[in-house]
Amino acid sequence: MSKTSKGRFFEDYRVGDQIAHAVPRTVSGGERAMYHALYPARGALYSSDEFARACGLPASPVDDLMAFHIVFGKSVPDISVNAVANLGYAQGRFLRPVYPGDTLRATSEVIGLKQNSNGKSGVVYVRTQGLNQRDEVVIDYVRWVMVRKGDLDAPAPETLVPELANAVDASDLVVPEGLTFAQYDDAQAGAPHRWGDYAVGEQIDHVDGMTMEEAEHMLATRLWQNTSKVHFDRTQRVDGKLLAYGGHVISVARALSFNGLANAQMMVAINGGSHANPCFAGDTIRAWSEVLDRAETAVPGVGALRLRTVATKGDPFVLRGAEGKYHRDVLLDFDYWVLMPV
Amino acid sequence: MSKTSKGRFFEDYRVGDQIAHAVPRTVSGGERAMYHALYPARGALYSSDEFARACGLPASPVDDLMAFHIVFGKSVPDISVNAVANLGYAQGRFLRPVYPGDTLRATSEVIGLKQNSNGKSGVVYVRTQGLNQRDEVVIDYVRWVMVRKGDLDAPAPETLVPELANAVDASDLVVPEGLTFAQYDDAQAGAPHRWGDYAVGEQIDHVDGMTMEEAEHMLATRLWQNTSKVHFDRTQRVDGKLLAYGGHVISVARALSFNGLANAQMMVAINGGSHANPCFAGDTIRAWSEVLDRAETAVPGVGALRLRTVATKGDPFVLRGAEGKYHRDVLLDFDYWVLMPV
Amino acid sequence: MSKTSKGRFFEDYRVGDQIAHAVPRTVSGGERAMYHALYPARGALYSSDEFARACGLPASPVDDLMAFHIVFGKSVPDISVNAVANLGYAQGRFLRPVYPGDTLRATSEVIGLKQNSNGKSGVVYVRTQGLNQRDEVVIDYVRWVMVRKGDLDAPAPETLVPELANAVDASDLVVPEGLTFAQYDDAQAGAPHRWGDYAVGEQIDHVDGMTMEEAEHMLATRLWQNTSKVHFDRTQRVDGKLLAYGGHVISVARALSFNGLANAQMMVAINGGSHANPCFAGDTIRAWSEVLDRAETAVPGVGALRLRTVATKGDPFVLRGAEGKYHRDVLLDFDYWVLMPV
Repeated sequence: MSKTSKGRFFEDYRVGDQIAHAVPRTVSGGERAMYHALYPARGALYSSDEFARACGLPASPVDDLMAFHIVFGKSVPDISVNAVANLGYAQGRFLRPVYPGDTLRATSEVIGLKQNSNGKSGVVYVRTQGLNQRDEVVIDYVRWVMVRKGDLDAPAPETLVPELANAVDASDLVVPEGLTFAQYDDAQAGAPHRWGDYAVGEQIDHVDGMTMEEAEHMLATRLWQNTSKVHFDRTQRVDGKLLAYGGHVISVARALSFNGLANAQMMVAINGGSHANPCFAGDTIRAWSEVLDRAETAVPGVGALRLRTVATKGDPFVLRGAEGKYHRDVLLDFDYWVLMPV
Repeated sequence: MSKTSKGRFFEDYRVGDQIAHAVPRTVSGGERAMYHALYPARGALYSSDEFARACGLPASPVDDLMAFHIVFGKSVPDISVNAVANLGYAQGRFLRPVYPGDTLRATSEVIGLKQNSNGKSGVVYVRTQGLNQRDEVVIDYVRWVMVRKGDLDAPAPETLVPELANAVDASDLVVPEGLTFAQYDDAQAGAPHRWGDYAVGEQIDHVDGMTMEEAEHMLATRLWQNTSKVHFDRTQRVDGKLLAYGGHVISVARALSFNGLANAQMMVAINGGSHANPCFAGDTIRAWSEVLDRAETAVPGVGALRLRTVATKGDPFVLRGAEGKYHRDVLLDFDYWVLMPV
Repeated sequence: MSKTSKGRFFEDYRVGDQIAHAVPRTVSGGERAMYHALYPARGALYSSDEFARACGLPASPVDDLMAFHIVFGKSVPDISVNAVANLGYAQGRFLRPVYPGDTLRATSEVIGLKQNSNGKSGVVYVRTQGLNQRDEVVIDYVRWVMVRKGDLDAPAPETLVPELANAVDASDLVVPEGLTFAQYDDAQAGAPHRWGDYAVGEQIDHVDGMTMEEAEHMLATRLWQNTSKVHFDRTQRVDGKLLAYGGHVISVARALSFNGLANAQMMVAINGGSHANPCFAGDTIRAWSEVLDRAETAVPGVGALRLRTVATKGDPFVLRGAEGKYHRDVLLDFDYWVLMPV
C-alpha cells in the first residue's frame, strides 16, 4: 500500500488513544542561537549561563516556548496535518526546564471528540506531553483542533467534550527546582519593575515592531520539525500565500514583550490562546499585554503573573471589533503565567 | 602579483595533481540546528542522541549530506570556481559518520582530463576525499566538471577519461562501526515500512512541497563555505537571478523523502546525480523516489536500498520529455544507497 | 509610570556616567554556525579547532567581529536607541579571544558631550567594554553618536570632546596569549601571501560580491540582540525600507576580504569606521582594501597590518566623489589592524 502517511482523519481517533509521536530531538546551543536569530528574545535567564546559575539553575535553559514548539511540532503529523483549524489551548504547564543536551519526545492522548453537525469534520481534543531522555514530563497541555473526515460515511463517535479549566490554578504552577531570585540583578535583567510593581488590569504597550519575512517563519517552523503543509508550500492556498505557523507569532510576541516585562523570566503555564487572524510575510508584528492576575508561589521571592499578550498588526489595546469578534489586525490573544522576582 | 585567486583554468590541471583544499571546519550542534532549520529533515538518527545510541552509535551524527556539502564546498575554489557546468558524480561513499566536534578537511586528486573539441573548455575529473581530525577518510567521491580555458592557446592535454562504475557495488558499502537496528523503534522513527517492504521498481510520491526563498539557499551555501559566485551575486547572470546550489536541492529532496522513506536512515553511497534544471527562489520543490536495487549488508538486520530520488517543480513520476531529455520541471535526478532496518 | 523604556535622550547623559548594559549572553557553537551562515567567512582560525590549536590557542575562538556585535548590541538600548546617527568608532582593541561557553556582558562610560548648535540634539561619546564571565575585558572601544534631546529646554551640558587617537598605536596591539604562527599552514589557511608580501599603499580588489536579503540582516541583527527599530520595523521609515545594521556590512566586507587577505587572521584593533551610505536588501556588496601600515609585534612571527577595507555597491578603489564626500556607492570605510604570519 502507500508508504506515505496521509495523517489521521476525524474518524480515525478514539477517546483513550495513546499516540507516540515520531522523531525524538536533541537540542543544543545551536537551536538556542537560532531562537535568538529568529526572535528578538532578550530574557536574561535564557541568554546567559551565568545569570541562570545566579538564579539557582545549572545552566541557561532553552526558551520555554522552544520546548513547546518542538513538542507541538512532533504532534502535527498525528494530530493536525488534516486540521481545518487549530481551535485552542488549555491547561498547559511547563514542568521542567529543558537544557542543551536534552532529548525531547512527545505523546498525546485523545481526551475528547465531537463530530460537527455538518458531518464533514469534527473536533479532536488531545492532551500532549513532552518528555525528556529521563522520561520526565517537561510540558503538558491540551489542545483541540477541527479535523476533516476522510470517510464521510463513518459513523459519528459518542460526543465527549472534556471539561477544561479557564486557566491553570496558581497553586498548580511548578517552580523549577532550585529557582531563586534572591540574588537577582535587575540591571543585568534589563528593568527595575518587579512582581509587586504590576497591578491587575494594567496594560502595557511593548512599543517595538518586527516585520516578518517569509524565510524567517519557514526557518523557525522547520526547526521545530513541524510538517504542516500550509507553512511551506505556496501551492496549498489559492492566493499563493504561505501561512506563518501560529507558534511563530507567539514567540515574536513574547520576545517583543521584553520591553515592559523584562523580568517576566519563565513561562510556567499556558491558559489559552487564539490565533485570531492569519499572519503573512510583510506583516509588522507589535504586542501589548494586560495583567490578568497575580499570585504568590510556594517559593519565597518568586511571584507569578497571569498575562494576556496580544500580537497585532495595528494599534495597542485594540482587541475586538463591534460585533465582539477579534479585530482584523489582531493576530494572537495569548493567556499565560510567568514567574517574576518579587 | 595579484593576491586574489582567480581559480584554476582547464590548462592548469594535470592528471595526478594532489590538491589540499583550504579552510578546515569544525562542526558543532550549531551546524546541525541550521541544517534542521534549512531542510525539513526528520531522520531520527540525525535528530536524537538517544535514538542514535539505541542504534549503537556514540551520539547522533550530523546529516551525511552535511558532510558532503562541507567537503564539496572546500573543493569549489580549486575545482569548480571557473566551471561552466557540474557534470556528474560517481562512486561516492560515506565511510565514517561525522559528529559534532569533528574537524573536516578536503583533498582532491585529478584523475582525468578531456579537452572539448571547441578548444575553449574541457572536462576535469577529480576524486575528492573528506578527512576528519584523525586523518580518517569520512567521504570519498568522484565528480567531473566542465572548466573554461584561461589561455585558449594552451595545448590540449592527453585525454584520459576514468572508468567510472555506474553504481557503487553493494559489497563496497560501509556500514558504520557498531551500527545495529536490533532495538530499532519504528514508532520513534516515524514509519513501519522496513527494508523488506520495499520492492525494486516501486515508486513513491513524497507528497510534501517546499517553496524556496532566496535567503534560505544562500544561508545554506555560505554555511558550507561554498564560494561559487552564481549563488550569491545577482550581477553574475544577465537575468539577475541567483542560482541555488545544486546540493541545496539534494538536501531538500532527501528531507522531503522522509514521507515514504522514514527508515532510510543513513546515506552510504552516491552512485550518481544530475542537476537537470536550475532551481531559483520561488520554486516549490517536491520529490518522488524509485527503488532501484536492494542488497543485504555484512551486518545482520541492516539492509541496503538503492534509490533514485527526483526533485521536481511538477508532477511526480515524470522524469524525461519526448526527446529523452529531462523534463523542464525536473531539478535533480539523484541515485544513492541508504541503510534501512531489515 | 511606564514600564517600557524610551531610552535616554541627550540631556540624560553626564560625563562620567557608568552604564551597565543589560542581558548577558553565553555564546556557543550555535552562534558560530549562524555567523558562517550569514557571512561568507573563511578565516581558518575561526573555522577549525585543529587549526586554532596549531596556532597555540585552546580552540577556535568566535569571530572577533561577533564579540564586537554582541557587545555593541548590548549598548544599543542605553546609548543609541534615540540616536540620529552613529558617527564614529575609535581606539577599539580586541584584548582576549572569546570562546564558545564564554558569557559576555557590556558596560559603557560617558566620556564626552557636545550639544549641537541647533539645540535639538547633541553628540555623546562613550567608551564601551565587553567583559567575559571572569570579568576580563575582551573588547574596548570608543564610539560617538548623535542623540536627540527629549526636552528641548534642558540646559546644554559643558562641552567635553575627548581626544581620540587617529589609530591605535601598533605598540598597544594585544597579541592573544599563546598565539604563534610557527607551524602555520598556508595551504590550509587558503593563500601563500604573508605579512612580508604586503606593501603600504597596496590596494586589493576582493572580487566577490554578495547580494543581501532582508531576512539575512535581520537574523544577524537579532542574533546580536540589537534592538534598534530601524533594522526590524518597516513602519519606521517613510520609504518603508529596513535599514541594515552597519555592523552587518562590516562583517560582510571582512568575510569577502578573505579573497586577497586569507592570512589576515585576527582583528586586533578598530581604528575607525564610517557607514558612508545606508545598505538595503537587494544591494550587492563588494569590498576592496588598502594597506595603511605595517608593524611588528612583540611576538616573533606575528606581524600586524593596518588595513582600510571599503564595502561598496560599485567599482573597486572608488572612495570619494568630486566634493570629497563618500561616493554614493560606498557603504563602509573601515580602518583596523589584523595579525598575520610573518
